[in-house]
Amino acid sequence: MEWIKVNIDKLFNFGVEVFKKLGVPEDDAKIVMDVLIASDRRGISSHGVARMRRYVNGIKSGIMKPVAKIEILKETPNTILASGGDGLGQVVGYKVMEMVIKKALDNNVCVGVVRNSNHYGIAGYYAMMALKHDLIGVSLTNSAPLMVPTYGKDAVLGTNPLALAFPAGKEKPIVLDMATSTVPRGKLEVYNRLSKPLPITWATDETGRPTQDAARVLANLLERKGGGLLPLGGADEETGGHKGYGLSFVIDILTGVLSGGAFGPNTYKKKGEPPNICHMFAALRIDAFMPVEEFKARLDEYINILRNCPKADGATRIYVAGEKEAEKEELHKDFVEIDPKVYEDLKSISEELSVPMEF
Amino acid sequence: MEWIKVNIDKLFNFGVEVFKKLGVPEDDAKIVMDVLIASDRRGISSHGVARMRRYVNGIKSGIMKPVAKIEILKETPNTILASGGDGLGQVVGYKVMEMVIKKALDNNVCVGVVRNSNHYGIAGYYAMMALKHDLIGVSLTNSAPLMVPTYGKDAVLGTNPLALAFPAGKEKPIVLDMATSTVPRGKLEVYNRLSKPLPITWATDETGRPTQDAARVLANLLERKGGGLLPLGGADEETGGHKGYGLSFVIDILTGVLSGGAFGPNTYKKKGEPPNICHMFAALRIDAFMPVEEFKARLDEYINILRNCPKADGATRIYVAGEKEAEKEELHKDFVEIDPKVYEDLKSISEELSVPMEF
Repeated sequence: MEWIKVNIDKLFNFGVEVFKKLGVPEDDAKIVMDVLIASDRRGISSHGVARMRRYVNGIKSGIMKPVAKIEILKETPNTILASGGDGLGQVVGYKVMEMVIKKALDNNVCVGVVRNSNHYGIAGYYAMMALKHDLIGVSLTNSAPLMVPTYGKDAVLGTNPLALAFPAGKEKPIVLDMATSTVPRGKLEVYNRLSKPLPITWATDETGRPTQDAARVLANLLERKGGGLLPLGGADEETGGHKGYGLSFVIDILTGVLSGGAFGPNTYKKKGEPPNICHMFAALRIDAFMPVEEFKARLDEYINILRNCPKADGATRIYVAGEKEAEKEELHKDFVEIDPKVYEDLKSISEELSVPMEF
Repeated sequence: MEWIKVNIDKLFNFGVEVFKKLGVPEDDAKIVMDVLIASDRRGISSHGVARMRRYVNGIKSGIMKPVAKIEILKETPNTILASGGDGLGQVVGYKVMEMVIKKALDNNVCVGVVRNSNHYGIAGYYAMMALKHDLIGVSLTNSAPLMVPTYGKDAVLGTNPLALAFPAGKEKPIVLDMATSTVPRGKLEVYNRLSKPLPITWATDETGRPTQDAARVLANLLERKGGGLLPLGGADEETGGHKGYGLSFVIDILTGVLSGGAFGPNTYKKKGEPPNICHMFAALRIDAFMPVEEFKARLDEYINILRNCPKADGATRIYVAGEKEAEKEELHKDFVEIDPKVYEDLKSISEELSVPMEF
């Protein structure tokens, strides 16, 4: 089925009304929709408005608080420890990253850590908030356990993404925004719909062995029967799987362990319990090291070196981190494209909450 | 051929005398040997005393300065920009990490960036220096271009490793120390000696296509004919190769670009030119977020969760980052094991410089 083009302003306003109806303050609702639509614009539809159904259910069931009591638990000129008050992850994410940016501007570098949060959308959004201040931005999060450790049978680790953003000059900023699994669960869903066999480095079955059967992995994950996504690098040390596993683990230490929130399998909660997802944000002044314009010119030079490198036989283009997403964002200035299934979700939310959907 | 057991004290003293003979100050020579032997003790023999031959040649040829004029070029309470003065990478690495630790103890977090350096051994050494101060330690470096970007034909990127170290309580500290390529070049050398076909995610040939022929890749790299190591994740986006490529790139931005040193293919120099390798070091106070003892207890808990997870069929043990290396270090309290080829190198150095080798 064809994806449906939806006007961004209309989608934004609809979402804001939805969250307001659920008791979310208007300014917070705007933050959430801005993060979700940024994701759709960048072509990361799994983290865009497709998530609204889960957030709506989360708030209705009481595990997500519409009015998040964000608390600063500990603070120094260079660090922040905050609680997201079980609210929408985007709200605390945005607010703490703003504080991190302010402190980094004043004191060169700042690290902020958050607990008691929820899914915050794309990690890259928060890292990119640093760009307009000519800072380097960093954002990490832990997430629900979907990934197996190397040689483990059960999914006890999140796909724990990391994002780093660097301002460039004439070129688009560099934005690395990646999960530490080979692929996210959404990718398995796509292969499942197409009945395509999975590449062998993507997932394991309930025995813990690599499998090409997407349906089996997805069913096992739902029922927590064993198996799950594989770390970047695949199942074995020979192909570097322990590196993806190690990255996921250290990101969870910097978020879940260091914040005092949930980590590892503890982010999987019984019905009614908030998942206590944790994030880390950081920002660094470039001009503590060199003039910003010099940095940008050097980064532009590097981007062009990579872009103009000889291509492998059969290849036509070398991308840099974030380039594909930036091109999609350019394309989606006025509209985004939405999976018909997601469109149906939005329609059902519209009916449930009596919020008219004018698109 | 059997590897040769060598007493650590004798090896250390020999190395110190070698570097002293080349004009390296005694204290600096001790730093270099401590880093090299730590690597051998941890089982990372590619980065241990096996590197002495290259350092000796580097100093003799003039591209590495025995007396490094380390300069602090720019400094704030939370940041350092330093030049390694074309000296041994270990010397500036050790000294700048010490400064970074001091500033982090005083001001919660510090980031130090270094240019005009050389190969600094294992990244993990510097990250681990933070452990005894109950800090989280980070160390990154760029390196000579051996790795291809996704869809690129030529090796224009370093294997640019990252290291993070976290103090634990009863457990060994967590130390993630990994290159961003699937494997280092040394691993291809091992497969080449055994005439074993390479896994398909390790390297490409001169056309830029994945190859299983280790000898061909190694020869091509030497002659810079095209092809090289593949990023973690392999040749394609489907298996996540763009993630390893992205990690390598951002590490080079944080080291080479931000420091004002060489980056990407520019770290490959003509004969007689110093390679201008660049590093980043960072340290973070844990107690800016929670009491150190609480953090350590939480990390111990997490380590035990992972260790005691159900194993995949056929697997017997789940490791955490740095655990294998820590076990090897324990084993090697008094002696390390050295490749006979490396032993021959040391012997030739001993003869060349008239430094007796008493082992």
